[in-house]
Amino acid sequence: MYYFIYITFPDEDSARKVARHLLENRLAACVNFWRINSMYWWEGEIQDDSEVAMIVKTRAEMYSKVREEVKRLHPYTTPCICAINVEEGNAEFLRWIDSIVEG
Amino acid sequence: MYYFIYITFPDEDSARKVARHLLENRLAACVNFWRINSMYWWEGEIQDDSEVAMIVKTRAEMYSKVREEVKRLHPYTTPCICAINVEEGNAEFLRWIDSIVEG
Amino acid sequence: MYYFIYITFPDEDSARKVARHLLENRLAACVNFWRINSMYWWEGEIQDDSEVAMIVKTRAEMYSKVREEVKRLHPYTTPCICAINVEEGNAEFLRWIDSIVEG
Repeated sequence: MYYFIYITFPDEDSARKVARHLLENRLAACVNFWRINSMYWWEGEIQDDSEVAMIVKTRAEMYSKVREEVKRLHPYTTPCICAINVEEGNAEFLRWIDSIVEG
Repeated sequence: MYYFIYITFPDEDSARKVARHLLENRLAACVNFWRINSMYWWEGEIQDDSEVAMIVKTRAEMYSKVREEVKRLHPYTTPCICAINVEEGNAEFLRWIDSIVEG
Repeated sequence: MYYFIYITFPDEDSARKVARHLLENRLAACVNFWRINSMYWWEGEIQDDSEVAMIVKTRAEMYSKVREEVKRLHPYTTPCICAINVEEGNAEFLRWIDSIVEG
């Protein structure tokens, strides 16, 4: 079982910092990130901000470790750290994730 | 149960208009959107357009209300309004969605 | 059953080439793509590259055909070709996928 964990960050610097930490600790094999706009409720008003979205590619059983490390390093009090299931993948890519993320 | 509902729009204006409507009516806690390129079959030809992709973060049971509101406001006759399941999420983020989207 | 198949490419040219091939062969009804940054382990080092992410919208039973065609045309030895399940979608959009991707 493999997850794409979707996380948003205030900017590229905080995204890169968390990405590097997850990779260096073998909690993920790969991350992708890109600039987005966000609209959301906060403190009773609709906010409209630029952010960075990230997909963290890892084994599903690493989810709670990833969540705890992201929470520890993330500048938000309530970050979005949501796991999407990978239903099927090409075997060589999944084996590659296994070779990096040893659990 | 929580969904990321993936919707595409022709431009930022139509995306923002729908986003604001969903947020104001408490049908979503947060939306993310970004520019994309799209290639697709339409009227017998492969089209190649710029669009805006959006992820709407909400409770799964709000899906049909979100779908109906998006269809009502969306400029396309056949928009993409596809729900992806959130397999796991950090409790404080999911509780935050619950606090906004009361159902 | 419908999938969003997430694939990354080194650049827009390779993404467009694969997109056109999938569409022309009715293996997908629509693709979306956008520029991303990627960080990942490769050859013992953390790489940091720009890439292009793509979502291929198709029927779930086409996954293995899509995977094989993407592997054949893709410049990487280990591309990411990961399927995400569409939990719910608006009927007119799913019927439109069916009308293009006949299986």
